[in-house]
Amino acid sequence: MTKRLAYLGPPGTYSEDAARLYDAGAELLPMPSLPAVVKSVYDGGADECIVPIENSLEGAVTITVDLLIRETSLLIKGELALPIHHCLIARPGARPGDARVVYSHPQSLAQCRDYLHRNFPDAVPMPSLSNSAAVNDMLGSAEPALAIAGRRAAGNYDVEIIDEEVEDNHSNATRFVVLSFGDGKPTGADKTSLCFNFETDKPGTLVTALQEFSSRGINLNKIESRPTKQHLGRYIFWVDIDGHREDAAVADALRGVRRHASMMKVLGSYPRHEFDG
Amino acid sequence: MTKRLAYLGPPGTYSEDAARLYDAGAELLPMPSLPAVVKSVYDGGADECIVPIENSLEGAVTITVDLLIRETSLLIKGELALPIHHCLIARPGARPGDARVVYSHPQSLAQCRDYLHRNFPDAVPMPSLSNSAAVNDMLGSAEPALAIAGRRAAGNYDVEIIDEEVEDNHSNATRFVVLSFGDGKPTGADKTSLCFNFETDKPGTLVTALQEFSSRGINLNKIESRPTKQHLGRYIFWVDIDGHREDAAVADALRGVRRHASMMKVLGSYPRHEFDG
Repeated sequence: MTKRLAYLGPPGTYSEDAARLYDAGAELLPMPSLPAVVKSVYDGGADECIVPIENSLEGAVTITVDLLIRETSLLIKGELALPIHHCLIARPGARPGDARVVYSHPQSLAQCRDYLHRNFPDAVPMPSLSNSAAVNDMLGSAEPALAIAGRRAAGNYDVEIIDEEVEDNHSNATRFVVLSFGDGKPTGADKTSLCFNFETDKPGTLVTALQEFSSRGINLNKIESRPTKQHLGRYIFWVDIDGHREDAAVADALRGVRRHASMMKVLGSYPRHEFDG
Repeated sequence: MTKRLAYLGPPGTYSEDAARLYDAGAELLPMPSLPAVVKSVYDGGADECIVPIENSLEGAVTITVDLLIRETSLLIKGELALPIHHCLIARPGARPGDARVVYSHPQSLAQCRDYLHRNFPDAVPMPSLSNSAAVNDMLGSAEPALAIAGRRAAGNYDVEIIDEEVEDNHSNATRFVVLSFGDGKPTGADKTSLCFNFETDKPGTLVTALQEFSSRGINLNKIESRPTKQHLGRYIFWVDIDGHREDAAVADALRGVRRHASMMKVLGSYPRHEFDG
């Protein structure tokens, strides 16, 4: 049976690109929000879902991180990285030099700031609610306009791609994770994600917990802190380590962390994706 | 002479509240963006500036964190926490129950989701580009509409406040920091912020650096990781510790961290603000 894979729609988003990269043969189910993406797996409407978790320029996708920490028992079973390249888009036949405004999501406008300043110094950047909405805003604009969005978003409208890879920093990439009721089997080259917090913030509490990994030679790939949402200045830590939760050393270290922590949740073990650089 | 204090405008934002809370007598200078706020101090247009750095529900204000890590040599000289309370706003004389849409910034809509669902199940949440813009969008709406924004934003328009503290989680607070060319003098109850990164991601590198603090009994208040913006999976760490950079133990620990790190920057020492809880 074809796998049903939920992602953050509408069609044309970078999430759709990631879903196709992960499984070109899957039936893709666009959902209206990240909570709805996750919920679709619970409801049985989808077998798995794919969600953005981190961008190389912007950092953590905090909605996804918070969903995984708090609101779901789905586990991470895989990860992949998608290079993000923006296109400059115009109405068919428009003269780009005439543009007075450039529509895009504020994050994308920020990522193309130098390019726009160099090539379209007279066009005013105008924030849109998404890159897909930016193409629509450009088409409805009373003034000569351009839009910045992904290649796939452009494909859904009658528009022209004027220029490609217009982002200032070409190492723009987003990491996605695949979620399902079960995580990955050990492959010998795995990662494990977990989160935890502490009752107190005594000196050294976090260090003591992290030493459970370092003392066993287990590499820490990543540490994020997220607010507990109860008090300013109290955090939940998210950690990615090398190894599978069934590896003896990792299992031992996880038991050690659980002893120090007031809450600890293993978010899944999955094959480690080697990122460039 | 009156202190000139720059903040993120327009007037009516929570940043204006924070600026007044920090120094009620200062001349307040609203700026159009966070980079412009910081730049105004360099240009001599302002003596100090105040910027949001962290929210108790949403976490780090990453634009500010990245500005401090990369783009400014201004130092943190103070911090304060501002409770964030949202108001429900309507046109004068409007019947709130008739509303078909509720405008606000997506973050504020998310923070009031349960309240809206309970009280206005038939009104559709509509994202606006800011809370101030939401009041404007509500006034211009063709359908009966409400807006969610701060009390101060409401004061700039001819509107009615229908309900107050409509956020679902009342522990919503934002921490702001004050920046200037110099940081704070030692007071005996201080904090120090710094950032650093490493050449390699060998097991234990981060732990070894953090032990410089824990082995001296110096409390770690906070750790954030931000992308290097060069490669997915490489990070710069931001750490807040107790103590002033001129305290002997802290100075010693900072020297220790500098030995392990490939980059290390002290972002300032300043009087520690005690947050509730």
